[in-house]
Amino acid sequence: MNTYKICLLPGDGIGPEIIAEGVKVLNAVGAKYDTAFEYADALIGGAAIDVTGEPLPQATLEAARASDAVLLAAVGGPKWDTTDPNAPRPEQGLLGIRKELGLYTNLRPVQIFNALADASTLRPEIVDGVDMMIVRELTGGLYFGRRERFYDEPAAGVDGAPGQRAYDTLEYSEYEIERIARQAFEIARKRRGKVTSVDKANVLETSRLWREIVHRVHDEAYADVQLEDLLVDNTAMQLINRPADFDVVVTENMFGDILSDEAAQITGSLGMLASASLGDGVALYEPSHGSAPDIAGRGIANPLAQILSVEMMLRYSFDMADAADDIRRAVTEVLDEGWRTGDIKDAETPADHVVGTERMGDLVVAHL
Amino acid sequence: MNTYKICLLPGDGIGPEIIAEGVKVLNAVGAKYDTAFEYADALIGGAAIDVTGEPLPQATLEAARASDAVLLAAVGGPKWDTTDPNAPRPEQGLLGIRKELGLYTNLRPVQIFNALADASTLRPEIVDGVDMMIVRELTGGLYFGRRERFYDEPAAGVDGAPGQRAYDTLEYSEYEIERIARQAFEIARKRRGKVTSVDKANVLETSRLWREIVHRVHDEAYADVQLEDLLVDNTAMQLINRPADFDVVVTENMFGDILSDEAAQITGSLGMLASASLGDGVALYEPSHGSAPDIAGRGIANPLAQILSVEMMLRYSFDMADAADDIRRAVTEVLDEGWRTGDIKDAETPADHVVGTERMGDLVVAHL
Ligand SMILES: CC(C)[C@H](C(=O)O)[C@@H](O)C(=O)O
Ligand SMILES: CC(C)[C@H](C(=O)O)[C@@H](O)C(=O)O
Repeated sequence: MNTYKICLLPGDGIGPEIIAEGVKVLNAVGAKYDTAFEYADALIGGAAIDVTGEPLPQATLEAARASDAVLLAAVGGPKWDTTDPNAPRPEQGLLGIRKELGLYTNLRPVQIFNALADASTLRPEIVDGVDMMIVRELTGGLYFGRRERFYDEPAAGVDGAPGQRAYDTLEYSEYEIERIARQAFEIARKRRGKVTSVDKANVLETSRLWREIVHRVHDEAYADVQLEDLLVDNTAMQLINRPADFDVVVTENMFGDILSDEAAQITGSLGMLASASLGDGVALYEPSHGSAPDIAGRGIANPLAQILSVEMMLRYSFDMADAADDIRRAVTEVLDEGWRTGDIKDAETPADHVVGTERMGDLVVAHL
Repeated sequence: MNTYKICLLPGDGIGPEIIAEGVKVLNAVGAKYDTAFEYADALIGGAAIDVTGEPLPQATLEAARASDAVLLAAVGGPKWDTTDPNAPRPEQGLLGIRKELGLYTNLRPVQIFNALADASTLRPEIVDGVDMMIVRELTGGLYFGRRERFYDEPAAGVDGAPGQRAYDTLEYSEYEIERIARQAFEIARKRRGKVTSVDKANVLETSRLWREIVHRVHDEAYADVQLEDLLVDNTAMQLINRPADFDVVVTENMFGDILSDEAAQITGSLGMLASASLGDGVALYEPSHGSAPDIAGRGIANPLAQILSVEMMLRYSFDMADAADDIRRAVTEVLDEGWRTGDIKDAETPADHVVGTERMGDLVVAHL
């Protein structure tokens, strides 16, 4: 019997509620596939700040490193919102663990469940067949470059009055671009064989380097994959215009942050989308949505994105494709039977089919 | 009789064809409102590179500075595409003139013409009532910060092999943020009184400065305007989810580039959207779409965004609101009568109502 150690990071808001359902599903899968999952809980984000003063305590990093995979729920909330550059912020926990574990590849699959096709604000014929994988570089760019604030700089204020100034740095090395490009091409080979590389090469030097390296990697080792370049502003348009045309979309960290959320919204059901962050060691899995502080603690949050992040964990970290397929099938069946949490219900959902977090987790388990 | 000097910058691709229709409309308006428009043509973009080797020749800048307003069509095309950081690129002409004329405010109205409501890929009930003004900071941020490329840096390549490295700098001063914030609040007062300020304050230092200054300006002088902060990734979602909720959206240069194109695509008819770039002196007006090199020279391009950029010129530079209203009414009537260029036609458009660039310009003039 295989045994895997999983580090659980519930984080903030609805995090603890939804991660419990992820664990429920893991346990059910373990029983069916004769695999043992051992769990170690650790603190991250606002929850960690409240207890330790830091968003990513050393103990959490150690627990993550000692595990075979990390399951995260969500971090952040108004309680910790601040623009004071010296105050700890929940997001630093997330950014810190990505950097410390070297999770340079963020995979965000964007797919539509048939039962939820009507949730999109786009016309049905436009979202029909949407199935793309956003490959976002996750440990470089503006997120991790040098940044600083200068107070009371002469001439930074209005009319030369004293004022402040700040900068962030967007930096990329050939190495960082090359490895994410390889990931995108490898993934495209297992899909429809097409990569759209997104940049702003008509303005940014990092984008011109990006474009050159992506093409070199392509020409040297992946000439069988179709490669197209698209400017980031044009991509923001085409995602709405012809979303079904995209297969694999690869881009740098900040563009990826914006475009992956845009693409997620195209489905109309953000509560259904999971993500995987991969590096050369332990990987991390999390829902694409946030911590939803407004509905935290009420037992009504949608756990399906968390459950689908477990699906990705089984697929990418444990090579358990059958078990992963089981989860996807179970989720699909539950939706086809009409079960909905509040965020994905619509005018046609009968009141007795609107369920809470735990019940939704139970329904998925029952279908495994 | 008033006389205004207008600097015409046709640029590349369809530029010369559509700007001719803008001039046609200006002349008709001039005759009706007893105003003389004098024109000076100048080179910009690829057209300027071909003749002078530079995307923004000194003579062009002088012509722009000597004018009362600048009418630009579009720049760029595959002919001048390159990732060589030392080669001249058409876009440098556009960025150069924005910087040289101090055009720090970019206004991009996003509205739906009733006759074209079906062009959107979004559901009709979602785009119904969309009417927002994107206020994009245009002379700061990543577009104009220090950037550099390093060749053959040790350890920048794979496995420590030699490779390259590049960076761009996102920089903002209090002064730059303050003046664009003021513009946004002033505009909101003349509209529905709501400003959405977009940043990435959970990651970027420039965004934290942005948020602080926007709130200071608001609290000091515009407390009557409703102000909300929205993270850029969330904004990319909400623009698709509830576009009609936005009134004025203010943001920094790169976020504005991406979000204004996304918002434009929500209308489904990019060929209808104009923009104004304002500073403390001469202003510049241009369509939101690009140079469409694939259809250049065929007389089929849609001139309406160019014509609507003339509308903005009359409104913002010449205080000719009646004439501006006339143009908008004329365009609306032409569309209501069913006339379409190829880009905005649909399955229901009768073949004899699909018209070319010149004919569309003539139709607008006939309705003035
Ligand atoms: C919380 C935030 C720092 C994070 C990011 O910007 O990467 C989030 O938006 C995401 O996409 O995972
Ligand atoms: C052509 C390009 C440099 C320009 C920009 O990025 O500002 C364009 O996309 C625009 O939005 O006007």
